[in-house]
Amino acid sequence: MMYTYLSKINGPEDLKDLKDEEIEILAQEIRDFLIESVSKTGGHLASNLGVVELTLALHMMFDSPKDKIIWDVGHQSYIHKILSGRRDFFNTLRQYKGLSGFPKRNESPHDHFDTGHSSTSISAALGMAFARDLKKETHSIVAVIGDGALTGGMAFEALNHAGQSKKNILVVLNDNEMSISQNVGGLSDYLSRIRTTPIYSKVKGDMENLISHIPAIGKSVVKTAEKAKDCIKYFFVPGVLFEELGFTYIGPIDGHNFGAMCKALKQSKNISGPVLLHVLTKKGKGYKHAEAFPDEYHGVSPFKVDSGKPLSTSSSVGFSDIAGQTLVEAGEKDNRIVAITAAMPLGTGLATFAERFPDRFFDVGIAEQHAVTLAAGFASEGYKPFFPVYSTFLQRGYDQVIHDVCIQNLPVTLLLDRAGIVGNDGETHHGIFDISFLSCVPNLTFMAPRDGKELKHMINYAIKQNGPVAIRYPRGNTEVIETDDFNEIVTGRGEIVYESGKDALIIALGPMYKKALDACKRLEKRGIYSTVLNPRFIKPMDEFLILQYANKCKRIYTIEDHIKHGGFGSQVVSLLNEHNIMKEVKILAYPDVFIEHGDINTLMEYYNLSSSKLYDEIEKDLKSKKFNRIAMTR
Amino acid sequence: MMYTYLSKINGPEDLKDLKDEEIEILAQEIRDFLIESVSKTGGHLASNLGVVELTLALHMMFDSPKDKIIWDVGHQSYIHKILSGRRDFFNTLRQYKGLSGFPKRNESPHDHFDTGHSSTSISAALGMAFARDLKKETHSIVAVIGDGALTGGMAFEALNHAGQSKKNILVVLNDNEMSISQNVGGLSDYLSRIRTTPIYSKVKGDMENLISHIPAIGKSVVKTAEKAKDCIKYFFVPGVLFEELGFTYIGPIDGHNFGAMCKALKQSKNISGPVLLHVLTKKGKGYKHAEAFPDEYHGVSPFKVDSGKPLSTSSSVGFSDIAGQTLVEAGEKDNRIVAITAAMPLGTGLATFAERFPDRFFDVGIAEQHAVTLAAGFASEGYKPFFPVYSTFLQRGYDQVIHDVCIQNLPVTLLLDRAGIVGNDGETHHGIFDISFLSCVPNLTFMAPRDGKELKHMINYAIKQNGPVAIRYPRGNTEVIETDDFNEIVTGRGEIVYESGKDALIIALGPMYKKALDACKRLEKRGIYSTVLNPRFIKPMDEFLILQYANKCKRIYTIEDHIKHGGFGSQVVSLLNEHNIMKEVKILAYPDVFIEHGDINTLMEYYNLSSSKLYDEIEKDLKSKKFNRIAMTR
Repeated sequence: MMYTYLSKINGPEDLKDLKDEEIEILAQEIRDFLIESVSKTGGHLASNLGVVELTLALHMMFDSPKDKIIWDVGHQSYIHKILSGRRDFFNTLRQYKGLSGFPKRNESPHDHFDTGHSSTSISAALGMAFARDLKKETHSIVAVIGDGALTGGMAFEALNHAGQSKKNILVVLNDNEMSISQNVGGLSDYLSRIRTTPIYSKVKGDMENLISHIPAIGKSVVKTAEKAKDCIKYFFVPGVLFEELGFTYIGPIDGHNFGAMCKALKQSKNISGPVLLHVLTKKGKGYKHAEAFPDEYHGVSPFKVDSGKPLSTSSSVGFSDIAGQTLVEAGEKDNRIVAITAAMPLGTGLATFAERFPDRFFDVGIAEQHAVTLAAGFASEGYKPFFPVYSTFLQRGYDQVIHDVCIQNLPVTLLLDRAGIVGNDGETHHGIFDISFLSCVPNLTFMAPRDGKELKHMINYAIKQNGPVAIRYPRGNTEVIETDDFNEIVTGRGEIVYESGKDALIIALGPMYKKALDACKRLEKRGIYSTVLNPRFIKPMDEFLILQYANKCKRIYTIEDHIKHGGFGSQVVSLLNEHNIMKEVKILAYPDVFIEHGDINTLMEYYNLSSSKLYDEIEKDLKSKKFNRIAMTR
Repeated sequence: MMYTYLSKINGPEDLKDLKDEEIEILAQEIRDFLIESVSKTGGHLASNLGVVELTLALHMMFDSPKDKIIWDVGHQSYIHKILSGRRDFFNTLRQYKGLSGFPKRNESPHDHFDTGHSSTSISAALGMAFARDLKKETHSIVAVIGDGALTGGMAFEALNHAGQSKKNILVVLNDNEMSISQNVGGLSDYLSRIRTTPIYSKVKGDMENLISHIPAIGKSVVKTAEKAKDCIKYFFVPGVLFEELGFTYIGPIDGHNFGAMCKALKQSKNISGPVLLHVLTKKGKGYKHAEAFPDEYHGVSPFKVDSGKPLSTSSSVGFSDIAGQTLVEAGEKDNRIVAITAAMPLGTGLATFAERFPDRFFDVGIAEQHAVTLAAGFASEGYKPFFPVYSTFLQRGYDQVIHDVCIQNLPVTLLLDRAGIVGNDGETHHGIFDISFLSCVPNLTFMAPRDGKELKHMINYAIKQNGPVAIRYPRGNTEVIETDDFNEIVTGRGEIVYESGKDALIIALGPMYKKALDACKRLEKRGIYSTVLNPRFIKPMDEFLILQYANKCKRIYTIEDHIKHGGFGSQVVSLLNEHNIMKEVKILAYPDVFIEHGDINTLMEYYNLSSSKLYDEIEKDLKSKKFNRIAMTR
């Protein structure tokens, strides 16, 4: 496809001379390019289609990179990337070694702060604003944050501080009425009242002239002029909530009207102190399928542009689906089951539960801290709350897990979805720390199922517990093995899934057991016979089974989709040490680095966790240790 | 002292028949009792003096334990404890095996939710309210939260959800204009404007009658009746910010006027949906020393009632003081140094820094998440931010440490004060998880100083780093050794602090080295000669030094003021495993339980971490292993 204007934009400076009509064509070209490109690579689509004009206006009115734009969450930074010299690399988006799907400081001088998780941008922008003023510099600093991200508590912490600071920062509230799904909460209702108010685009300054025009109020009802002014402000300025926190509110502005936005941005520059510019956008704007189903087009796999249908459809079932189904089945039988999500009803598989049990389903918005303690409140009243949450986002509710759930030993179940590497979202989203940060917490029972069937049994096991439980499972599909031979889940008991000999004991956590099995069968062809152990429980660990086999087998390997430091393998090592079994354990896990983005299989291969790499590692190790072993036993 | 009324109150039901005049006398008796008792045990004083009438009014108007009162943070629950049958145990407050300083479900049926950290109460109350309605019960649920705790993001997350939920819960905002120190932020400014507004105690309902009285507004300026109503609301109801989130606001009420509060509480019961009752109290009320210096009397050691002076004064210096002094000295030389606190300027030793460098000091309120990312924002602009924070509270900013600081490898230094057990505040406040949850994070350099001098050097070392650093040090005093022989801090290098032989290698983290040394010298008298190693670095660990001595010494011990699971010792075990050194390590650390409250020395003794217990453990272990060793080497 030829792009008359887009092909000439190699940096934001190339925008400056374009006329409004040309910008309009450019906007269309950007949408075409974006849809075309994301249809091939996959990625975040709907949110980016919503911010085309907003991004153009920001780059028109500010001078990036001198002026700094921070993209909250950052999945909506694609247009920014396209305009700031990365158009020609856009076909590498989210691929291994390609462009990141989020802003990255090491990718471009136009990216000032890495984002990925929600609600961080105002804090970062405020830190930069304090720094700017200490250095006596004068550039602008802009945080672009969605109405969904604004429900995250840390955004409020930052607004609260920024409001009092009187620093010059601009917060652009990109209000599309959505998180990934429909947005929730009192604040969302409030924004919705603003949207339906007929008076648009008023600023406090304009209003203050009006005071003298209504002397009747000033005299008859109100005691002070200040109070009258406030009332007027409230009359005409919809954003009183932000004004009360110390911001000057501008808006709401039509976020698809380039000219109106440029005008408002210009206006914002003339205001001293923090400004909140409220912009109304439509998620998916300009692509009918995405406009109709913005949640489904939030993050997409490669798709056909015409039909909007995914290129490949798989009929297999994901771990999230199994979790969701199991909760629905459990919910039918047991009305103590409640489910909580932090703005992720689809991603965590809760859609059916939400529909079936609207009274027992709670979407709290992007608010993991509140979600965990809300669950604790439920549990304190005899309920059995489940909180399915991506492993990486539970980092936000860590204190609440310790302080509100585990100290009180309350029966809250954390379903850690997307535990392990998640692929293309990259380093901010991999769930590879949970074993380290949860295993140290007393009272918690912590499991990892090898497949969908085991997940189902673990959830049913969790319902019967009187204390906190966490279950970690990865992104992606699982086989559901419909055989009858299933070893019941018993606290602290693992299982031997394969046993052909004692050359090696392979302890493989969760779905890694399958790769262990593959490697094991290949090793057999080389005359090496091993045992594969599925530990099921990270905590309490099956000490008996592990020690028994550790004693029997010549070499011990652990495999996990997690970072090595403090992970499952290191806990096996500690166990052996505690019982004075002096055998070396080879831990196969991620090294002490942040894992970049890329296809899961590619990353697993690179980090030696694919079946074939596991085979290589074990085979190589056994070979090298042969002589040592002889030396040691001599 | 004789208490005419207080001695008869054995549960909240005993209050119900008292007349207002009797309540007034009772309130005075409670204050006398509280001051007398806390002057002996130590504890939280000022906040409790502020809520005497509030607590009385709550227990008068509600029926605890059927109605549920959740105390946010919970250090202000003393009056509640005294009134709910625990008066006669109050002399055991915060002592080992005595009453907790916080609400505890296992202590009384009147305590419905354990608290300790700030800002959790609304989430818990809302969970309970959903549960109540599902069970079709009708009791009241009250969350009592301070204006300080309201700055914590999770309180906002909960307000946002509660506002939309329309559930009947009462949030009592106990506004004393303080966190531990003066409160900060736009919300605080807002509350202060409400306080100075002359119109008190108005409710939305009352106001709506007024609309018709001002027809001029309705016709000339406002388009819709709804808008006019909103304006009227804003005119007379100061709490529009809460109203906008979906709450009915009542207040502000004088929190020391028992009658007024009872009336307002009664009113609140008749309102459907969430209600916020804004109560103004004075921290320290009724004890002149505490009124004058509420921050100093927030938490106190035993003191003389007349003078308000502490019973014992120590001239020694705390780790926090050293940290504060070092930052001041560094700040003089280097204007890139900035210091951030989350409402703890005194506790973390930053008072002098704040005074000396007001432009480079930032108190963000109870907002650890924002604090960490604000620091990251500063660091991204070339500054060297320091965030001194209690270890237990950093759990609140965990995701931000990973996501905003460490992924970007930004030079933020986290000073983990109160790392290890903290004593009387108990299980919610012990800082015994940080090694487990921080060691797994890539890019982080993590240290523990043995004493004040080493802390000073480590802070100066941190300033020179280009990536994130964490330094953990315990509550309490330290010797400052003013000798010249100091081994410079070098990345990943520990030191041998004592070497008399190779029977045992004792690796003692941080100030535990002193206890190791004591034990070591006692062992010498029994003919056992050992080496004490101060690792300095938790990460990167001094692999060379540890492996070298592990090879040389017969037995290896690690000592740490931290939980065993994922702690320092377990990392030493992993290191030895990785290098195929098959020697058992005996880890001396806390077991896998939450540690109760009590004097630090008592707890250390109980958990085998006192000098004498360490001696016993090592001596016993060496004795038992002697025969094994012979067997092994035979």
